[in-house]
Amino acid sequence: MDYRGRVARVQERMRAQGLDWLLVAPSADLTYLTGLEARHGDRLTALLVPAMGEATALVPLLEAGALDREALPGALLTWPDGADPVALIVERLSEAHEVGVTESFWARDLLPLQERLPSARLSVATALRPLRERKDEAELDLLRRAAHAADHVFERICATGLEGRGEAEVAELLRAMIVEEGHDAVAFCIVAAGPHSARPHHDPGERRIARGDLVVLDYGGSIDGYNSDITRTLAVGDPGPEARAVYEAVRAAQETGVRAVRPGVTTGAVDIATRTALESAGYGAYVVHRTGHGLGLELHEAPYLVVGDDTALQPGMVFSVEPGLYLQGRFGVRIEDIVAVTPDSVERLNQSDRSLRIVE
Amino acid sequence: MDYRGRVARVQERMRAQGLDWLLVAPSADLTYLTGLEARHGDRLTALLVPAMGEATALVPLLEAGALDREALPGALLTWPDGADPVALIVERLSEAHEVGVTESFWARDLLPLQERLPSARLSVATALRPLRERKDEAELDLLRRAAHAADHVFERICATGLEGRGEAEVAELLRAMIVEEGHDAVAFCIVAAGPHSARPHHDPGERRIARGDLVVLDYGGSIDGYNSDITRTLAVGDPGPEARAVYEAVRAAQETGVRAVRPGVTTGAVDIATRTALESAGYGAYVVHRTGHGLGLELHEAPYLVVGDDTALQPGMVFSVEPGLYLQGRFGVRIEDIVAVTPDSVERLNQSDRSLRIVE
Repeated sequence: MDYRGRVARVQERMRAQGLDWLLVAPSADLTYLTGLEARHGDRLTALLVPAMGEATALVPLLEAGALDREALPGALLTWPDGADPVALIVERLSEAHEVGVTESFWARDLLPLQERLPSARLSVATALRPLRERKDEAELDLLRRAAHAADHVFERICATGLEGRGEAEVAELLRAMIVEEGHDAVAFCIVAAGPHSARPHHDPGERRIARGDLVVLDYGGSIDGYNSDITRTLAVGDPGPEARAVYEAVRAAQETGVRAVRPGVTTGAVDIATRTALESAGYGAYVVHRTGHGLGLELHEAPYLVVGDDTALQPGMVFSVEPGLYLQGRFGVRIEDIVAVTPDSVERLNQSDRSLRIVE
Repeated sequence: MDYRGRVARVQERMRAQGLDWLLVAPSADLTYLTGLEARHGDRLTALLVPAMGEATALVPLLEAGALDREALPGALLTWPDGADPVALIVERLSEAHEVGVTESFWARDLLPLQERLPSARLSVATALRPLRERKDEAELDLLRRAAHAADHVFERICATGLEGRGEAEVAELLRAMIVEEGHDAVAFCIVAAGPHSARPHHDPGERRIARGDLVVLDYGGSIDGYNSDITRTLAVGDPGPEARAVYEAVRAAQETGVRAVRPGVTTGAVDIATRTALESAGYGAYVVHRTGHGLGLELHEAPYLVVGDDTALQPGMVFSVEPGLYLQGRFGVRIEDIVAVTPDSVERLNQSDRSLRIVE
């Protein structure tokens, strides 16, 4: 990846916004700009980006030995245990007026910075967001590969008998398949059977899948850091007329949502389109979440497809379209594809069949 | 766990400090007070604790179905996608003057709160730290069990031939043993052979372990959320006189550090004791990290044993004593035990032999 180019592009935006410095906490933002996969911890790590000139990676001394210095898009500044890393930031930013921090910057570091930089205004930076939202060809290629791998996992799990298996057992099968089909790593895995399918983020447990159950499978993995995320709802044997009707409402709403996607339409409008479809079908009371979320280095990232959000869709944006209906204590249905905005329309990255699949 | 009792104790401290509200972000702090294992994400989750009265867990609507409401030490307030969760906090805190936030509270939520609560002063809360630092009997019991399980893993890996195996392969063996010996989950696993042992946080790779290598094994797992963390450095065959001398310096410094631990001594003084031992042996140039860190629900938590820190040790504190020496490009040695401060002295939770183990 061209990390120096990415830093240069974010600096261009910083200058346009009048931002003097950008402080990037360990996060996908840091990975996007440097390749570093540092995590938040008791020792401060951050990338310090000035509007002009070289960026500096501030890294705990004991992590420095393992760093690939050649790959860093700027200077390296290490700090030893016992030193005050905030003082190193304050030193560099003493002349700053407008300082952006990334969303996940910690209060532990932010509040002392405010106190020690009284003439600076700290704000949540927006300079990175448009860069990360619009995926380039290399990123799109990884997201496509991950989505296709997820599709293949779905075909395989459908061919496996599910009746009588435990949710956690099916999750283990999925985890193995996610890697076998080409992901580097498993990101997450939800298997929710019968009444558990009414919980959007159910943790797979010991429940055995029974005939008549709806089963929500929602899983993903990553390739070179870029994620897949797919949901399909299966029926084990005939789920009955009400479940079929709810399924069909979700399927139609998902189709409506995907068809609404094109450049210029807002994220909120896509959410309203799917919500309206579910409400018109008489199921408005069972909607508990937004239509979707961006996907890339993070499983959930901007843009968010939620009412009130007025982000205009642009080519290269990648996100989920995943309406769901949840009848508490009874059953739930969710159908999710990842889509990419194209110059004039939409590309579905997931291509698995969305009609109700009845399995054994 | 008695979550209501913990919340009551933190409220007592809040009143003593003049704090009106405490906002707890997803973190071990939240788990400590509620049992919730929520993670930071695109949807805000927080516990809102007033100085007097009932705490409120602010949770995204779609997560609410999976919550055990009975276990919550207070009220539940859910917010649907499209709503503004910061507004819900602002509403409750409109009269507040002094508001504490936990260390990992995100800038995304903190900066808007500052703007929308102009009469409140937000600061990093210290009210929770003394509660979490001093482990109670139930916590000590879990930490002891985890430490003993880690000790058993060490005995087993010593009995496994290491020569010719890859680092990543040994890490896989350790991961399996960590669970087999009684942990619920693996927390982390470092296997660093030969020159890699000079990197404190080396990521196990393809390097094959050769005769004459020093191998640093540093790993841990958790039982009911409470962690183990042990480091031993092995020699595969005779490592030579210099490595033996460095090993002996680290072993002696670790012994010095553990002997320095007792109530009333400061964390900084324990760090200075081990550093001085390493420096007196002539190895001061190869010290790259502090002596240790607290351990509990987090692998690294307060107190930190680092020069300049003047936390007075108290009974119930649990932390690592883990001096190391790192000769870049050549080899490194680290020896780590978890210890607990007792009413008059110290208890080693890890009991594995610390003399240089020569294995095949």
